Order: sequence, then structure tokens, then C-alpha cells
Amino acid sequence: MYPCCVGHEIVGTAVRVGSQVKGIAIGDRVGVGAQSDSCQGRQGDCEECAMGSEQYCSKKFTGTYNSTHQNGDKSYGGYGLYNRVPGHFAIKIPDTISSAEAAPMLCGGVTLYSPLKHNGCGPGKRVGIIGVGGLGHFGVLFAKAMGADKVVAISRRANKSEDSLKMGADLYIATEDEPDWATVHARSLDLIVSTVSSTKMPMTEYLGLLRTNGSLVQVGLPDDGTLYAPIRPLMRRLKVESSLVGSPDEIREMFQLVADKGVHPWIEEIPMKDANRAIVDMEAGKARYRYVLANE
Amino acid sequence: MYPCCVGHEIVGTAVRVGSQVKGIAIGDRVGVGAQSDSCQGRQGDCEECAMGSEQYCSKKFTGTYNSTHQNGDKSYGGYGLYNRVPGHFAIKIPDTISSAEAAPMLCGGVTLYSPLKHNGCGPGKRVGIIGVGGLGHFGVLFAKAMGADKVVAISRRANKSEDSLKMGADLYIATEDEPDWATVHARSLDLIVSTVSSTKMPMTEYLGLLRTNGSLVQVGLPDDGTLYAPIRPLMRRLKVESSLVGSPDEIREMFQLVADKGVHPWIEEIPMKDANRAIVDMEAGKARYRYVLANE
Repeated sequence: MYPCCVGHEIVGTAVRVGSQVKGIAIGDRVGVGAQSDSCQGRQGDCEECAMGSEQYCSKKFTGTYNSTHQNGDKSYGGYGLYNRVPGHFAIKIPDTISSAEAAPMLCGGVTLYSPLKHNGCGPGKRVGIIGVGGLGHFGVLFAKAMGADKVVAISRRANKSEDSLKMGADLYIATEDEPDWATVHARSLDLIVSTVSSTKMPMTEYLGLLRTNGSLVQVGLPDDGTLYAPIRPLMRRLKVESSLVGSPDEIREMFQLVADKGVHPWIEEIPMKDANRAIVDMEAGKARYRYVLANE
Repeated sequence: MYPCCVGHEIVGTAVRVGSQVKGIAIGDRVGVGAQSDSCQGRQGDCEECAMGSEQYCSKKFTGTYNSTHQNGDKSYGGYGLYNRVPGHFAIKIPDTISSAEAAPMLCGGVTLYSPLKHNGCGPGKRVGIIGVGGLGHFGVLFAKAMGADKVVAISRRANKSEDSLKMGADLYIATEDEPDWATVHARSLDLIVSTVSSTKMPMTEYLGLLRTNGSLVQVGLPDDGTLYAPIRPLMRRLKVESSLVGSPDEIREMFQLVADKGVHPWIEEIPMKDANRAIVDMEAGKARYRYVLANE
């Protein structure tokens, strides 16, 4: 809806704070993710908002840009000097996390944190992350920080093996370079989060990596919008699920984990004047693993 | 593998008992379901057999007919006067359950009991059963017996409404006769078990019936072997899963529930000499809801 200002992983300093806003003072460093409003009970009872799952609100999901607020105002994103957002969706950033590190966690990071948390990632769990990119690298970092027994990074080629092991992966599987991967690692994982979006995923083989009762969470968007789940492999009481970003509370929890465990996302800070180059490089797959645009 | 004797929901009286068999004596009434053997640790450690999920054993699944046992012997089914089966897979039947009622629960019944149990069916849960037939009618009966807050039977046409309400359903939805069903009942269920097998299921609408975090378990076999899960509706942290029959322990639990709650499957007993007619009638959709063949 032109005019439009994009950008939905925003970090800045509070320069004005509404009279009803709680917990944020002028001067606080805050971040905004992909969602900047939900109904919050203003249209009658809302189960999702009441239980702190604002991202699943059935009445109002305001995207941070190119969307509308409850009052009809358009929402504008973060590629600018200032941004205005409902206080409920502005999250304070712990002092030990740099602004550049915080930004890509507000959507990309929490997209991995949320399904890992909701599926019990931690001690006793063996976790696989499919795709080591802008999303997947958060999965490897967070699964390790959450104390999973084993973290397995899964990608097509071997070229991200070294990075993945540095991020904390215990094992790296290159599916196109290791012919026997599906049998060698069969039934070895409790949980898989898939960040890839091709509909040509080898789903039967991916599901085969799960032990009985395991879950595969698809957070990448398949090209044609459909997840093809072969039923025979699923019949071992496997679950295929999906989820969408994270709630304000989940973003706070993620920041706490990152602060407590000293997690550092792999980012490269780019001055705003070089935004065009950054986008070209990102499309060419050169990001390792997130570019962050910074005002000077 | 000819010669073949079919039948995998078998009830009879023990006339011979092996010396190593525990818990079964000559004269006991026992039943056998779709599985009559698993590795049970005889080929090295087996996680699934150790945790009582024999139906997911990766080393050996002996189908009750047209399959092979650990020792290489062929397995034969229950359309006969006698049947021989490993003792671990012969389940004692409580006295209060008739043989004719017990038989169709050994595969069909436990196929519904298992996913209901593993997804926490009981007080506080609202449960939908898609398809009111040989499988689905067990779902309605069991969900009610397990104490679900609300049981919803879902079928295409209104003609099974009366039966479903008698079985214990609190609500019946006829998807082809009620144009607004998907919006009227949106987000009203915690759990759905789908027993239908068409690939033309309205999955987006079915998933829309689930509240956030809900699960749909597909126990019907889709015609082409693939479950098509539209990703957008799934993104409310919904789960799509599947499962396969039930373990010996689950069959025992189901029988206990049925005995405790006085559940009665809807069956019609047919003398073995009329088996051909029963099969023709069944294919014509006349069963309400299970035919049971009985030796005279």
C-alpha cells in the first residue's frame, strides 16, 4: 500500500513514550519484530492474546509494515530514522546484547526460538536444523544454548560444515555429498526444525531421521504453500507442524537466553548508504549469516 | 504369499499355551490385532519395543497375516478355526466385553484409542472425529468415555447425525449440508482425528476448526499416500500427525476403559457361512458400523 516503508526487525532508542505504556522509558533501547499489533482484547475476549500468543490472534495481526493498526492507521517499517509502534510490541533489549545483534533476532531469531521452546528443546533432546542460513543459523545457536544433548546441522552441501560446528553443532550432515546420510542417521533426532522452502525437500528421508514420537517443524515457507507429508513415514506417531514468528514474551525470553548464555548471532553490519549492495549480496547468498543495516 | 489366510481382528479361547508364555492360561479368552510380532530385543536393543511401542519397531513388524515371523515362519490370519500367535501379542479380554464386541477393537478400535490417548483426550479437551464409519465410530465412543469436554462428529452428509448423537457426540457437523460450518465452528476444537482417506479433504477448513496449538491426527490412509498440509493455516502452531494401530499395552488399556465405562461398539454379528454377503454389504457401505464374523 504505497507509500510504504519496509523493515520489520527494528532496533532504536525510545524518544517518545505514550502515557499508557508500561515498562519503557525515554532513552531505553527497544526492538520491534514482524508484528506490531494484535487485538489485545479490544474486540472482545481473545484466547490467543490472553494466553500470550499474540501472533496467533484471530482478530488483528498488524504486520510491522504495509498493514493497518486497530485505529485504521497504516503501519510503517524500520528503514527510516524514526518508527512509531504500540508499546506492547516494543521489547526492551538487555544491555549485553548489541543493537546489531538484537535486530535480526526480532523476527528471524524468534522464528527458531519459538518452535524449539514449544517442543521442549533442552537436555535430553537431540535436535536437527535443516538449512544453515539466515534462519537456520539461529536454530543451531539457540539449540546449543538451550542445552540440547545433540545439535545436528543439515544442509545440502559440505561448505557450511565448518561454520556450523563453530556455532555449536555437534554434527553436520551434507545431504547431497553423503549418499548414506538417511540410513546412517535414521531415528537419531527428537526434533527437527526445517528452514528451507523448496517443495522438493526429501521429506521421507527427513522424517526418517526422527525417532518414534518425534516432530518436524516447518518454518520455511514452501514455494507452493503446501507441505507434502508422506503418510507412511508419519505413521510412527510423528508430528509435522509449523509456527509463525514469536510473541512479545517469547522475544523477551529469547533475549534473556542470549544474554545469559552469551550467544552471538553471526552478522555483518552495513552502513545504510550501502543498503543496495547488501541486498544484492544477500540475494547472491553471500550473507554469513545476516546483514544488518545501520543508520550512521 | 499364497497360501494365505486373512483376518487380523481375532478372538478365541486359548487351547494351547507355550511354556514361556506369561499371563495366559488354557481356557482364557484372548484377542489378536493387526500385529502379531515385533523384534522384542531379539536383534539387539530396540528403543520402540523397550518403551512398549512395539508397533513402531524398526526391526520387525509381523503383520497378523501374509507376513513372516522372526523364525521365518509365515503368519496366518483369523478366518479359520484355529490361530497360532506369539503370546506377547495375544491379549486377554475382560469378562464384561463380549467376543463380538472385542474383535473389531483389536485393530480398528485401538487405531482411534491410541492417538486419542497420546494427545491427551479427556477432561478439558474438545475433540472432533472426521468420518463416522468403522473407524470413526470408535473415536466418538472412546472420546466420550475418556471424558472429553465436547465430542464433535464430522461427516459429509447429515444421515449419520442421529447415530452419532446416540454414540455420545455433543455435536454433529455435516460439511456438505451446512454451508457455514467452517466459520461457525472455527477454532473450537483441541484435537481432531481424521479417519477419512480421500485426498480431496478440505484440509484448510478442517485445520481451521482447531484452536491454536491444536492437533489433527490422520489415521485414514490418503489414496495417494500423501497428506497435503496447507502451510498458512498450520502456522498457528498446529500439528499434523499420524499413527499406526496400537501396542499390546494400549489394547489392554482400551479394553480396561471399555469395561470400566461400559462402552458398546456398534456391531452386527454375522455367521461365518454368510461371510460373502457381509463383505458385499460392507463394500456397499451398509455396515453400522462393524460386521463381525462368528464361527458357529
